[in-house]
Amino acid sequence: MDADILFAGGVVVTMDARRQIVRDGAVAVRDGRIVAVGKLEDVRAHWSAREVRDCGGCVVMPGLVNTHTHLPMSLLRGLVDDLRLDVWLYGYMLPVEREFTDERFCRVGTLLSCAELIRSGVTCLADMYYYEDTVAETVAQVGLRGVCAETIMKIPTPDAESYDESLDYAQRFVEKWQHHPLITPAFGPHSIYLCTPEILHATSMLGLKYDVPQLIHIAETDLEVRELVEKLGEPPVVWMQKQGLLVGKMLVAHGVHLTDAEMRLLAERHIGVAHNPTSNLKLASGIARVMALRGSGVNVGLGTDGCASNNDLDMFEEMRLAALLPKGVSGDPTALPARVAVEMATLEGARTLYLDGEIGSLEPGKWADIIVVNLDTVHETPKFALSDNNVYSQLVYAAKSADVRDVAVAGRFLMRDRELLTIDVPAVQSDAEAMASRIDRFLAAREENLVDKIVGIGGVEQQETFEVQVKVRLPDERALRHLLGHKDVNVIRESVRRQYDTYFLFDDPDKGHVRYREDNVIQPDGSLVPRYGLTLRGPTVERVYENSVILSRSRFSAVADRSLRFYREYFQPDRIKEVNKERRRWRVQYKGVDFEVNADRLFRPAYDDLFLEIKSRTWSAKDALAKAGLIGEMLEIMGVSSEQIVRKEYVDF
Amino acid sequence: MDADILFAGGVVVTMDARRQIVRDGAVAVRDGRIVAVGKLEDVRAHWSAREVRDCGGCVVMPGLVNTHTHLPMSLLRGLVDDLRLDVWLYGYMLPVEREFTDERFCRVGTLLSCAELIRSGVTCLADMYYYEDTVAETVAQVGLRGVCAETIMKIPTPDAESYDESLDYAQRFVEKWQHHPLITPAFGPHSIYLCTPEILHATSMLGLKYDVPQLIHIAETDLEVRELVEKLGEPPVVWMQKQGLLVGKMLVAHGVHLTDAEMRLLAERHIGVAHNPTSNLKLASGIARVMALRGSGVNVGLGTDGCASNNDLDMFEEMRLAALLPKGVSGDPTALPARVAVEMATLEGARTLYLDGEIGSLEPGKWADIIVVNLDTVHETPKFALSDNNVYSQLVYAAKSADVRDVAVAGRFLMRDRELLTIDVPAVQSDAEAMASRIDRFLAAREENLVDKIVGIGGVEQQETFEVQVKVRLPDERALRHLLGHKDVNVIRESVRRQYDTYFLFDDPDKGHVRYREDNVIQPDGSLVPRYGLTLRGPTVERVYENSVILSRSRFSAVADRSLRFYREYFQPDRIKEVNKERRRWRVQYKGVDFEVNADRLFRPAYDDLFLEIKSRTWSAKDALAKAGLIGEMLEIMGVSSEQIVRKEYVDF
Repeated sequence: MDADILFAGGVVVTMDARRQIVRDGAVAVRDGRIVAVGKLEDVRAHWSAREVRDCGGCVVMPGLVNTHTHLPMSLLRGLVDDLRLDVWLYGYMLPVEREFTDERFCRVGTLLSCAELIRSGVTCLADMYYYEDTVAETVAQVGLRGVCAETIMKIPTPDAESYDESLDYAQRFVEKWQHHPLITPAFGPHSIYLCTPEILHATSMLGLKYDVPQLIHIAETDLEVRELVEKLGEPPVVWMQKQGLLVGKMLVAHGVHLTDAEMRLLAERHIGVAHNPTSNLKLASGIARVMALRGSGVNVGLGTDGCASNNDLDMFEEMRLAALLPKGVSGDPTALPARVAVEMATLEGARTLYLDGEIGSLEPGKWADIIVVNLDTVHETPKFALSDNNVYSQLVYAAKSADVRDVAVAGRFLMRDRELLTIDVPAVQSDAEAMASRIDRFLAAREENLVDKIVGIGGVEQQETFEVQVKVRLPDERALRHLLGHKDVNVIRESVRRQYDTYFLFDDPDKGHVRYREDNVIQPDGSLVPRYGLTLRGPTVERVYENSVILSRSRFSAVADRSLRFYREYFQPDRIKEVNKERRRWRVQYKGVDFEVNADRLFRPAYDDLFLEIKSRTWSAKDALAKAGLIGEMLEIMGVSSEQIVRKEYVDF
Repeated sequence: MDADILFAGGVVVTMDARRQIVRDGAVAVRDGRIVAVGKLEDVRAHWSAREVRDCGGCVVMPGLVNTHTHLPMSLLRGLVDDLRLDVWLYGYMLPVEREFTDERFCRVGTLLSCAELIRSGVTCLADMYYYEDTVAETVAQVGLRGVCAETIMKIPTPDAESYDESLDYAQRFVEKWQHHPLITPAFGPHSIYLCTPEILHATSMLGLKYDVPQLIHIAETDLEVRELVEKLGEPPVVWMQKQGLLVGKMLVAHGVHLTDAEMRLLAERHIGVAHNPTSNLKLASGIARVMALRGSGVNVGLGTDGCASNNDLDMFEEMRLAALLPKGVSGDPTALPARVAVEMATLEGARTLYLDGEIGSLEPGKWADIIVVNLDTVHETPKFALSDNNVYSQLVYAAKSADVRDVAVAGRFLMRDRELLTIDVPAVQSDAEAMASRIDRFLAAREENLVDKIVGIGGVEQQETFEVQVKVRLPDERALRHLLGHKDVNVIRESVRRQYDTYFLFDDPDKGHVRYREDNVIQPDGSLVPRYGLTLRGPTVERVYENSVILSRSRFSAVADRSLRFYREYFQPDRIKEVNKERRRWRVQYKGVDFEVNADRLFRPAYDDLFLEIKSRTWSAKDALAKAGLIGEMLEIMGVSSEQIVRKEYVDF
């Protein structure tokens, strides 16, 4: 009979039900599907092919299935690494995505990722990103097989102002791609914590309606799970089960911190997990309990996650790590043998995507998604053939993605002899480098300029440009009492605070400095109400008057809703300084003009004297000058001499 | 001035004290040493070179330092994996090494490993193996830099009957290679558990005398440490300190299970640790506490270990794992940033080998051990340049060994454009494959033939070929008492035992079966003295007589000094069966001929009746026939009818 292609010779790793390995084997392909697998001489006896591809010295096996990735993020590869998850995400990934993610970004990033995937033997991927129509179009055009999910979140995304928009987009997207031979459209509710229950119910219903997969991140980090348990009262998968959300073709990404009960629920519902060992290590999420998952009957596929957290899309590395980690963690060297790692990367991965009837093994009737891996390399020398396990060992413990020679999807060659046939690689590389240069410039400008950096994390207010202020050192409180009791001074309100300031200082004087303040207002009953604020002071232009100072500088303030640690890593100061004090604060009017009067007792650094500050802020230079005059009058009322005036800020003490 | 080579352009990663990274940099080399490092235009202004090597789009960096390996073991790559450490070691590695390791094996294996090391960017390695003179000669000839240690153990090794021989060999070896420009000879006391204190004291003294390194495995596995602590009364490094053994240029391989106190001792003595993350995971030794080690001030280098436990020699994978594991284990994504992983793979590795004055960074005066890594690849696209960290990220999280383009040691190119210049790779591959075929055949024959397999683990005795035996089923003990009281029967000795037999059965009848017996002799005071025995019965030829059976078969017995679990995994039976019984045993003489009489009560499987066995063994077929006659007479004495005779063995019940 006539076939289109005959993969002839080499070791055929079928991954069929009996896990047959055929040495001197062959695979015949017709109309994109496999028509025969067996010994070369047997297949040759029945099939003649237009193209005979010599695979001597190679392994012929099912293409690898990457069950979790974010394709366009290859454009952010290696941008910033080795940072706290929140600094990495809120400080860099989200701001850059907000600024740069559009259809062109998704197209270039997807092309780049597809090139890398093909070069490392992947024939099927599961993606979650934005502008998924562009992603799907690109994947299909390249000729890869993909489960493509439009990401839906409760917060605004690069392609939607609200989740209603995302849901509409996703639904149109699923309808458009529903019957494509290569693309399986899907819904991508990001996670429980970034979705509302309404979103999860909607994607659940839509997933059932269109009979398409739903991809969702669950239990990636310990913190996520702890916060959800606190909010929902139970582990996330248990909650989903009770909400009726564990339905349809779901796939859980990560699943690092699942309980045994959750594993059983997933197993019962035939819901698989995409295991991303490199990403889970690199982002310090932990090591997923893969032995327990598979022991519970959960199908576990392998994924690379996005390039920003990996930093590549190399499924051979994921196979190796998937096999190595359970051994090191359990102390049992027989844990997760090489054969199982290959299963996870092929048939079991296909099963988590509900595609195992079509791909994942080399069997007649399935799509011809086939890769050829060259074993005639130094690092695969010598090759033993004591048992079938030797082949799995060769693939998992020694093979490298660069050993993949040919890749075909549905019988179409996407790579031959490591040459990509459907992607113009130099053009994609040049587009990607140009985009990286823009991102580099954007971030470099932001890094240089603390204003942009603080704006980058959001929720920042710019304050009045001019500050008028005087600070005096007093042996006791008499002068202060005299001022507050003066007929021209009207006290509007007063408070007592304990203020712990941490200053981030920079060697470059143009940078200004950042102050993180924990401001504890002491209540009448003695209790403390803390507030956390962040203030950026830009470089200062000073004008010193006889009795006061007028400062002109940019000043930004924000509620500090992240930890001191976060800001420290985000701003990367050259030096850090602490100033702690007790402050009594009065809002006063002097001759009808607003001023702030602070009486500070510093305990770090410690001083016996009292420091008195009179301050005001304004947008107007002229107004600043007038206020400086009023401050001078107040100093006269107090009878303060000019040598009592302190011209340094506390941070410079 | 004149230089020999100018590495021109690209990003120069110096690893100097300031960790300078020079974009558009250059490195000039003369007489094997670096003479200039800096901006290309600056270096060009002062140096003209015979060869200008364009490194645009690449990283130019110090060659990688592999601080722990066993070069010739690449010939055992992927032979057997995913087994218990003891099965792997005692069942396969040691028997194969005993059979195959000779000078030729070491030469071919070293060439193969060197080819792989050069292709993955290694310029300096630390080896421990046998026939180290051959290893050193091969390394030097290839042009790599090596610290080569002859392995010394208390047990016989492939190149020495006793440790005195090894010590003599090692001393001659060190004297011979002492002043070689590429080779640093060293002593390799294997480990505390495989050495005697005398060996450790001797290598220590010799190390000091010749001022050469000592390489030793310490704290690789938890079991090793627990056994040593039990034996020595304290953790191994503490014991070594008290013994005065922590002297000279020592390097500890693995150090997975070191205590904080041991880390402090190593730091004080400036003794480094070779960290082998892949091997430690694969053999399930655990995950070394690298953050704690470095935090204590211990220098930590990276190593691949031998190919049999890795299964490759890819230092890029070790760098990546070294950076990833501490994050996943600690939950801190800032743990061991990429820069530190590169340090460990270069300068810090050199420091553990006491070679940091000569290599490990690109600085004028050091040897020109330089590699060029191509970053113009799909998986390194795009490249950001926000900070120096981007380059380290590119090298650690995305670069692959296959990206290494050029390798030079002492200014001599060993690889250019991925072509090896000092090794005939096809010849080495073909030699290695031929050797692998021999090993395959050796093991396959052993696997088929349980005799060879049992001999493979040593300490086995072959027993007499012929067994004459009869087994009868008795309702009570009367017949037995009659026999033992008969005038022609002389009871030599008797005992009572409780026997727990586990039979390993095979579908292939040619294989025979293996019995693991726990034989508890019940003492007069009621206590049990257990003995563990292993018996292999080869395929049987049976001749059935009227009253007895003569069996002709090979029969091997051994003290079973390993666990049932070990043997189960080693023999890989198709089925397992348990037989438990209480046995009273008499050694008797009937008419002056020795027989064994057993009265057995089976409780698993359980039978009410008593089973009586009369047995004898002999090397002679004629003798067997005579003994069958005597057994017939004894049955007559007991008045046993032929239907009481049981023709099955207990295992077949």
